[in-house]
Amino acid sequence: MTQTMQAAVYVEPNRIVLEDRPLPQVGHGDALIRVTTTTICGTDIHILKGEYPVERGRIVGHEPVGVIEELGPGVSGYEVGQRVIVGAITPCGQCHACLAADWAQCGSKPMGGWRLGNTLDGCQAEYVRVPHAMANLTPIPDNLSDEHVLMCPDIMSTGFAGAENGHIRIGDTVAVFAQGPIGLCATAGAKLCGASTIIGVDGIAARLEMATRFGADVAINYQEDDPVQAILDLTNGRGVDVAIEALGAQSTFENCLRVLRPGGTLSSLGVYSGKLTMPLEAFAAGLGDHKIATTLCPGGKERMRRLMNVIESQRFNAAQLVTHRFSLAQIEEAYELFSQQRDGVLKVAITP
Amino acid sequence: MTQTMQAAVYVEPNRIVLEDRPLPQVGHGDALIRVTTTTICGTDIHILKGEYPVERGRIVGHEPVGVIEELGPGVSGYEVGQRVIVGAITPCGQCHACLAADWAQCGSKPMGGWRLGNTLDGCQAEYVRVPHAMANLTPIPDNLSDEHVLMCPDIMSTGFAGAENGHIRIGDTVAVFAQGPIGLCATAGAKLCGASTIIGVDGIAARLEMATRFGADVAINYQEDDPVQAILDLTNGRGVDVAIEALGAQSTFENCLRVLRPGGTLSSLGVYSGKLTMPLEAFAAGLGDHKIATTLCPGGKERMRRLMNVIESQRFNAAQLVTHRFSLAQIEEAYELFSQQRDGVLKVAITP
Amino acid sequence: MTQTMQAAVYVEPNRIVLEDRPLPQVGHGDALIRVTTTTICGTDIHILKGEYPVERGRIVGHEPVGVIEELGPGVSGYEVGQRVIVGAITPCGQCHACLAADWAQCGSKPMGGWRLGNTLDGCQAEYVRVPHAMANLTPIPDNLSDEHVLMCPDIMSTGFAGAENGHIRIGDTVAVFAQGPIGLCATAGAKLCGASTIIGVDGIAARLEMATRFGADVAINYQEDDPVQAILDLTNGRGVDVAIEALGAQSTFENCLRVLRPGGTLSSLGVYSGKLTMPLEAFAAGLGDHKIATTLCPGGKERMRRLMNVIESQRFNAAQLVTHRFSLAQIEEAYELFSQQRDGVLKVAITP
Amino acid sequence: MTQTMQAAVYVEPNRIVLEDRPLPQVGHGDALIRVTTTTICGTDIHILKGEYPVERGRIVGHEPVGVIEELGPGVSGYEVGQRVIVGAITPCGQCHACLAADWAQCGSKPMGGWRLGNTLDGCQAEYVRVPHAMANLTPIPDNLSDEHVLMCPDIMSTGFAGAENGHIRIGDTVAVFAQGPIGLCATAGAKLCGASTIIGVDGIAARLEMATRFGADVAINYQEDDPVQAILDLTNGRGVDVAIEALGAQSTFENCLRVLRPGGTLSSLGVYSGKLTMPLEAFAAGLGDHKIATTLCPGGKERMRRLMNVIESQRFNAAQLVTHRFSLAQIEEAYELFSQQRDGVLKVAITP
Repeated sequence: MTQTMQAAVYVEPNRIVLEDRPLPQVGHGDALIRVTTTTICGTDIHILKGEYPVERGRIVGHEPVGVIEELGPGVSGYEVGQRVIVGAITPCGQCHACLAADWAQCGSKPMGGWRLGNTLDGCQAEYVRVPHAMANLTPIPDNLSDEHVLMCPDIMSTGFAGAENGHIRIGDTVAVFAQGPIGLCATAGAKLCGASTIIGVDGIAARLEMATRFGADVAINYQEDDPVQAILDLTNGRGVDVAIEALGAQSTFENCLRVLRPGGTLSSLGVYSGKLTMPLEAFAAGLGDHKIATTLCPGGKERMRRLMNVIESQRFNAAQLVTHRFSLAQIEEAYELFSQQRDGVLKVAITP
Repeated sequence: MTQTMQAAVYVEPNRIVLEDRPLPQVGHGDALIRVTTTTICGTDIHILKGEYPVERGRIVGHEPVGVIEELGPGVSGYEVGQRVIVGAITPCGQCHACLAADWAQCGSKPMGGWRLGNTLDGCQAEYVRVPHAMANLTPIPDNLSDEHVLMCPDIMSTGFAGAENGHIRIGDTVAVFAQGPIGLCATAGAKLCGASTIIGVDGIAARLEMATRFGADVAINYQEDDPVQAILDLTNGRGVDVAIEALGAQSTFENCLRVLRPGGTLSSLGVYSGKLTMPLEAFAAGLGDHKIATTLCPGGKERMRRLMNVIESQRFNAAQLVTHRFSLAQIEEAYELFSQQRDGVLKVAITP
Repeated sequence: MTQTMQAAVYVEPNRIVLEDRPLPQVGHGDALIRVTTTTICGTDIHILKGEYPVERGRIVGHEPVGVIEELGPGVSGYEVGQRVIVGAITPCGQCHACLAADWAQCGSKPMGGWRLGNTLDGCQAEYVRVPHAMANLTPIPDNLSDEHVLMCPDIMSTGFAGAENGHIRIGDTVAVFAQGPIGLCATAGAKLCGASTIIGVDGIAARLEMATRFGADVAINYQEDDPVQAILDLTNGRGVDVAIEALGAQSTFENCLRVLRPGGTLSSLGVYSGKLTMPLEAFAAGLGDHKIATTLCPGGKERMRRLMNVIESQRFNAAQLVTHRFSLAQIEEAYELFSQQRDGVLKVAITP
Repeated sequence: MTQTMQAAVYVEPNRIVLEDRPLPQVGHGDALIRVTTTTICGTDIHILKGEYPVERGRIVGHEPVGVIEELGPGVSGYEVGQRVIVGAITPCGQCHACLAADWAQCGSKPMGGWRLGNTLDGCQAEYVRVPHAMANLTPIPDNLSDEHVLMCPDIMSTGFAGAENGHIRIGDTVAVFAQGPIGLCATAGAKLCGASTIIGVDGIAARLEMATRFGADVAINYQEDDPVQAILDLTNGRGVDVAIEALGAQSTFENCLRVLRPGGTLSSLGVYSGKLTMPLEAFAAGLGDHKIATTLCPGGKERMRRLMNVIESQRFNAAQLVTHRFSLAQIEEAYELFSQQRDGVLKVAITP
């Protein structure tokens, strides 16, 4: 085991570079994971662009698949050498928020459970220190490859939660606005929750084609059709039971409300910037019995166990989202491709 | 039974006048109620000012207490002469929305269940025709006076629903922004739901004093203190579990989010006009696991029965809200007082 | 339109016979349906055997597919000649129970919503009178045949509700005890709700084979293996999140608790007779945070609309359950086959 | 700090005696608490009688109020000398069950969260070692005495959970069978949840009198009246929305179902022994849409914080339940009194 490692580090806006770093020290309750596969998230691009603030020098990345290299004091029930994943959100399990089932808001701070690649060094590196290891290490079933489970830590957990927190029920009609990786997982999640009519909206034909494979019954290209009118037509003016926002923009948020039936739920996954305004007539001036739920990626080892079950039982093949593969040494190139959304990229796999 | 009656009619913006009208004809499934007491709602003031559109010539009013005068074909289980109340919202019980428990959105139209004084003639009159009588007539227990139950049709049903749809639980800390009649009922509802710290916010000392009587543990006068800072101080920076908006304004909506803990619920009762914008940092850019629930007054006879039970069992005395009394002949005067919010008026009782 | 019709009538225990009957008279709020297809339910067999009491002379059957023949006063929004289904449960929508969303317990009486073939004449006949037509007639989409939708009124609604009321979530492990028509629909419902490991238990190989087609990941034949031990082995001793009872027997009820994890839900669909005893150690003496939910078939036109959506969108093909076909004239023969469970019968289609 | 301490030890059936024991050693994640007040629970009497198995030599007691004496490695955010309470249930917060919000079933074992005085040494002693201290130590507000908070760890948490898990809503009618300490807390909890008619049932007049003080609107002495008939009369045959079982006996369980309306919830708090049989006609043979929820005392520091808030805000004064006081030296005497239920004892306070 070498004493230094390669890691992707946020240096300043528009610069994430590969650097040599000392190996993380493992403290009480921690685990050191040797990363075998990881990926880049849309949030990492926000960090890259300086839109989401992390401190300079922070190692980025929050979607680790790897092998236990070392266990700190107080960590039991695991073994060095075990293959594990760790959620993007690493709750402590023991604070007031966690004991109120608000694990993603660990420490009672907004997004407090998001530590890796945010308030602690992340996993776009050869090794990553995982805090609260007892609550966050999940062994990978032998028959699943790294790529099989690579989407569990964030994209799949988030997308599925969009369906779950929309309280989708058997027979619901659901619209999913934006069919990037999270929207695609929300589409798959809506199907798993029993939605019987799923309408996927995007502006890129390839993504809409994938939406159809993931469970969308109807795909609407907003470049060609007004999605609000099209959805109202499809539902005979009734609107949808649940609308999922998977982009983080005024237009999609607004359209969600415009197609939502009275009494329906807007399930919001997007990260908004700039301004977000309610379209009052679509919102029935506040009298439509509408619900809005926002969701940060659920984490913790029980969530990861459940998601891997879904994959193992072949209910959903998240590995389809991996379109490109890079070594860690090529990560700057990967960032370039992913931030430009070139070559039909959906998700990249990075192997240290 | 005379063949004409007096009724308060919306003539044009800023003019609601008492007119003579023919008695309503009772059709299939209808009941004719002789109104013994009714009241004026904040919504009626919006109608008066032309801010909420009803057609010219509409008899206004949606909070009837009265006596059954006549029952239409197909209405059984009631008797002429029975004292009854009818909710502000009169669901049919038989459409798709009603059969999905979205009674206030009856007919799958936004606010579709609100008929009286909106899409049908209302109850600021000597008589009112009640549609879907089987689903909407609730006998008044003998030991309750008209004023005891006068708030059930709207104010109390709405205010309590603000607490219920906030999913308030035992031990919660709750802030209620605005302590008008609905906010006061929301305060009382929060206490009934088990909130252990209730913070009432308003700018009028008399309303804050009443808030304290209705269950608020702390009363904050926003004329004197910054309510956001005061609430964060009171909760040691933690924020509240549930924030109830009971005004319908950008400032109160925004403040609700500013004092809401991650994972908390904003329960919105207000009717918004103009613009409504999300304060993105308070909204954690969409990542705070926040929920927003909007509520239109629940109606139907089962809701009314339950609310009258609350009054009968002396859990809450809604009659305290009646500060002024007028005959129907004086209703224009009552509108003047109520719309100006003079003389510390909270609610008026109108007796035809 | 003839003035008499043929109908299957309960005469006395072990005798349901075809008789001539006058056509039903349509009253206020009613519809007369000309039955085009119907079926026999397990409950009808209980009636036949005298185990479930209906009055002598009652026309049996509660699963109608047909065409509107006549509409009573007060019924609007439908047309004579329209193809419709009606749920086994026909709630009024306007009583206290219905307005509390307890539609199956209409009138606040246990099973009060079950009228057809129970407290009113049913649909194993050429015509059936449907009460509360406004709440209960659901038009059939043109592209669906009678057999496509024949399971919606009861079997599919009940089975799916077993999954829904078990609050199955994505990633759950679920056991379904008994794979008759209702258990098979519960299996399909569990899959639609996102269960990732579904274990079907029965003693008949053909049913287990069908369970696998309907979504079961594992099929256990209790004639060959102890299902409790097998399920505990499969789940590494953890037990299942939700266990569905679809038979109505002490042994299956008990086994559900024996395989249920602490905190899990037993969703009970069976109709029990004789004695039902809790296995206290499996019930953790009442300290296991277990939930038990019992369910009567949900009805009403919104439920029917949703179920037909599921079929139309090809999420589930309930028509596979129809194994035998008879004319109404042959209904006594159909009862004989179905009550004996001969020839691998699952469900029969009866066409007047 | 002495190196030995006095402790109440289960020796054999019918013998719990005071013994000298070495002080507990504090390990990783643990805290040592100097007990200042504790109490005896009904469960301890089951242990005493040999009805609930704990190993011989086990120090009993699971309701500690005390002062932090020592903190083990890995415990931060607390200080030696702080006054704290610890719930009867001490979840780890980090296992699969805890991360699924099933804290009482920690470790995915039935009752796995109940450690103190069960699988670990308890707190009827001068000192107690608290495992998973980060998740379980809750500072006591300065203005609350030991006796103010003494019921939080078990009786109040359990009783309130009976109301909460019954999903009591504003306007509900609720029956609570048995008005011992837990039933009384369930009665208080029902009131806090908004029940508008609460019916307390017991056979002891003094307890019924206290039930009335705790929120019961009606008190029924089953020695004088048939409680089932009385409740059906009170509710005009409708039955109650929620029935809470707070004894653990066939008769009360059965009566709960007999008074429960279709669609209602039986919330069970009792620990059952012997046989538990469903009364099938009251259970509507499984077709009444009844729910049964069983509950083990919720624990963890967030639960304790909330319960102390309820007391601090004077919503409920649990200290009223303390009827007798003993020193630890007198604990055998206290057990004798409490197990015989002499002198109107409700709860005893034990001070080491």
